[in-house]
Amino acid sequence: MKFSYISHLYCPKCSEKYERDKVQQLCKCGAPLLVKYDLHSLAAQWKPDDLAGRRNDLWRYHELLPVADESNIVSMGEGMTPLIEMLSISTNIGINHLYMKDEGIIPTGTFKARGAAVGVSKAKELGVKEFAMPTNGNAGAAWALYAARSGISSTIVMPEDAPKITRNECAISGANLYLVNGLISDAGKIVGKAVEEYNLYDVSTLKEPYRIEGKKTMGLEIAEQFDWEVPDVILYPTGGGVGLIGIYKALRELQELGWINKEKMPRLAAVQSEGCAPIVKAWQEGKKESAFWDNSETLAFGINVPKALGDFLVLQAIYETAGCAVSVSDQALLEEQKLISQQEGLFICPEGAAAFHAARKLRNEGWIKKEEKVVVLNTGAGIKYPNTVSVDVPILEPNESIKPVTIM
Amino acid sequence: MKFSYISHLYCPKCSEKYERDKVQQLCKCGAPLLVKYDLHSLAAQWKPDDLAGRRNDLWRYHELLPVADESNIVSMGEGMTPLIEMLSISTNIGINHLYMKDEGIIPTGTFKARGAAVGVSKAKELGVKEFAMPTNGNAGAAWALYAARSGISSTIVMPEDAPKITRNECAISGANLYLVNGLISDAGKIVGKAVEEYNLYDVSTLKEPYRIEGKKTMGLEIAEQFDWEVPDVILYPTGGGVGLIGIYKALRELQELGWINKEKMPRLAAVQSEGCAPIVKAWQEGKKESAFWDNSETLAFGINVPKALGDFLVLQAIYETAGCAVSVSDQALLEEQKLISQQEGLFICPEGAAAFHAARKLRNEGWIKKEEKVVVLNTGAGIKYPNTVSVDVPILEPNESIKPVTIM
Repeated sequence: MKFSYISHLYCPKCSEKYERDKVQQLCKCGAPLLVKYDLHSLAAQWKPDDLAGRRNDLWRYHELLPVADESNIVSMGEGMTPLIEMLSISTNIGINHLYMKDEGIIPTGTFKARGAAVGVSKAKELGVKEFAMPTNGNAGAAWALYAARSGISSTIVMPEDAPKITRNECAISGANLYLVNGLISDAGKIVGKAVEEYNLYDVSTLKEPYRIEGKKTMGLEIAEQFDWEVPDVILYPTGGGVGLIGIYKALRELQELGWINKEKMPRLAAVQSEGCAPIVKAWQEGKKESAFWDNSETLAFGINVPKALGDFLVLQAIYETAGCAVSVSDQALLEEQKLISQQEGLFICPEGAAAFHAARKLRNEGWIKKEEKVVVLNTGAGIKYPNTVSVDVPILEPNESIKPVTIM
Repeated sequence: MKFSYISHLYCPKCSEKYERDKVQQLCKCGAPLLVKYDLHSLAAQWKPDDLAGRRNDLWRYHELLPVADESNIVSMGEGMTPLIEMLSISTNIGINHLYMKDEGIIPTGTFKARGAAVGVSKAKELGVKEFAMPTNGNAGAAWALYAARSGISSTIVMPEDAPKITRNECAISGANLYLVNGLISDAGKIVGKAVEEYNLYDVSTLKEPYRIEGKKTMGLEIAEQFDWEVPDVILYPTGGGVGLIGIYKALRELQELGWINKEKMPRLAAVQSEGCAPIVKAWQEGKKESAFWDNSETLAFGINVPKALGDFLVLQAIYETAGCAVSVSDQALLEEQKLISQQEGLFICPEGAAAFHAARKLRNEGWIKKEEKVVVLNTGAGIKYPNTVSVDVPILEPNESIKPVTIM
């Protein structure tokens, strides 16, 4: 058995092939590259039972990941996040079997750790010494910290308005950090100029082919956690969309391996904010690509992406799974976030709350049926966004008294 | 097989026994109560191999936990946190086999989730409808959120200076939250008055006997993660000390079960801050209890506990394992926190950083040998304490340029 069954890279748009052992960025045609595995050989040698007793993180699926030599793995124990049954919100929404995959329980507190772990490990394997990236915060934090662990230098540019804690994470990692008085698209232009001028490795979303492989493991884990019986619907908060593309890729690969039913795919739902919903608009219009969303604005910072490089892949995943795209208001997601904390004890991130509210909308519209098995991805811990919670609390002097809840 | 082998409660000071099926607080003599299991019966029926394929959280050890009926478990997937090998800091400190158990990768972002999960589950089993507690922040956040999940009402009182994020967690959970212009001891007095007046369940540290059982699972996991060969030294940041007492209790129980060598206990090291080191002082003086530490102050808020109710149990654990107690300065722990982020990519909490610095001191003094196997507990995620990181970053306009690290 080989450690990885990576075969080569290919362009999903023009089908051009690329070598796996060299640093690659975008295809000549401008589209992102995807990783192809030798699934035929792998299917003959690898069975679900082989996972028993393996390490309890995303590297348990190393045959389906791009790192060829185990010694190149840069890990902090990321993956195999809990799949939590929603006991109370399920009734409240009217979905009998509602689950949350909690991507807050992972190094750096968001699912971005998956992309960074696999992306940085592969960069190390390819001999990369330095990279640069623009970020809305959480991806930059994850890549900066994994880079520090690997010994690779990182240059990170983020909007001044990005969540403050992510700034701290980059700073303490020793990253070469810059803020920009602008949006992630402005950060992207600054990084683009530096990449061109200094011939740097560009790890912007989908400009390197491996972070998607890390995010793919969310799909692998969901399948394993349901004992290879996939759910009916998966809802995913969608900015750059790499998580959704990755989950779709994972499920297709598992079908090819014969580990899950070839006839059943979960319907994938892309969730966006009303203030930034290019995928929703494109889906409603039946288009294959999205248009740039002007003046985007949402407090769910992670899904404030006006035009994603992988938009055509997101839309393809939606169309091919009979999925949908849906947007929610900031007000609605804040209320959902509060309700979930109070009823389930789970302090989730605004993006995750958006996905729960989307589940509620889709249930109300009948798109989700009561008896269906539904998984919502919470992409990060609520503690990374303290400002979304309003706190109005009495301040006592030491000699004062309080009353319990039942007396009040 | 029973789900739990809980037998009864007992007082470690006066040996008085208490029933397991009633709400219990402190012993009549004022000491905290501990849980006793029927280890003799359990040893005959339960083997390490039985853990294979069990759920990957702390409930995998349910036989050694106090919840008798599985349906009372209140869980968000807590436990089985990663044990991470320190690849670079190990060389820097001069310890060949240095590991970190990362308690940041857990619901609510600190090890307090373990105590809350087991404490709240047992409270639910006992029919508790409401509880109250004082907190330095993280414990209150964890108990408030698990209470919300269980349907139990919570009243939480914390110092105004406690980490702000924990305030948000309590608020969004719907807890009855108060701040106090004072220390945790002032919060404790306010809670004490309410408990007495309204006959509330008091879940202050060690005033209920079950949170220690949750924290005990750190010891069980360390033993399992090392395949039942315990390490030579475990360092623990020590405020209330429940984690250290719990780890010690776990290891003794595993010895009684015959799962680990009866002749070898890890040496337990209690780590405190120079600004609040009552256990260190007591240990240096060979005493069995600590004295109240006046005017305590440290930025490692979680270990700012001037006098712990369980101090005699902490000291006993140290003496009986040939352990030690050591204090570190705030300046030293901040430097250690930064170094660990830059070299290992791990953004740990100030308390965890204190424990790493203690490992460095003890290695320099020769108390830890180069070839020993050493585990440091990082009790929480660095992202819960953003203010410990100083950030000094350039802010660019969109048309500006940057240089990569290798050119600078």
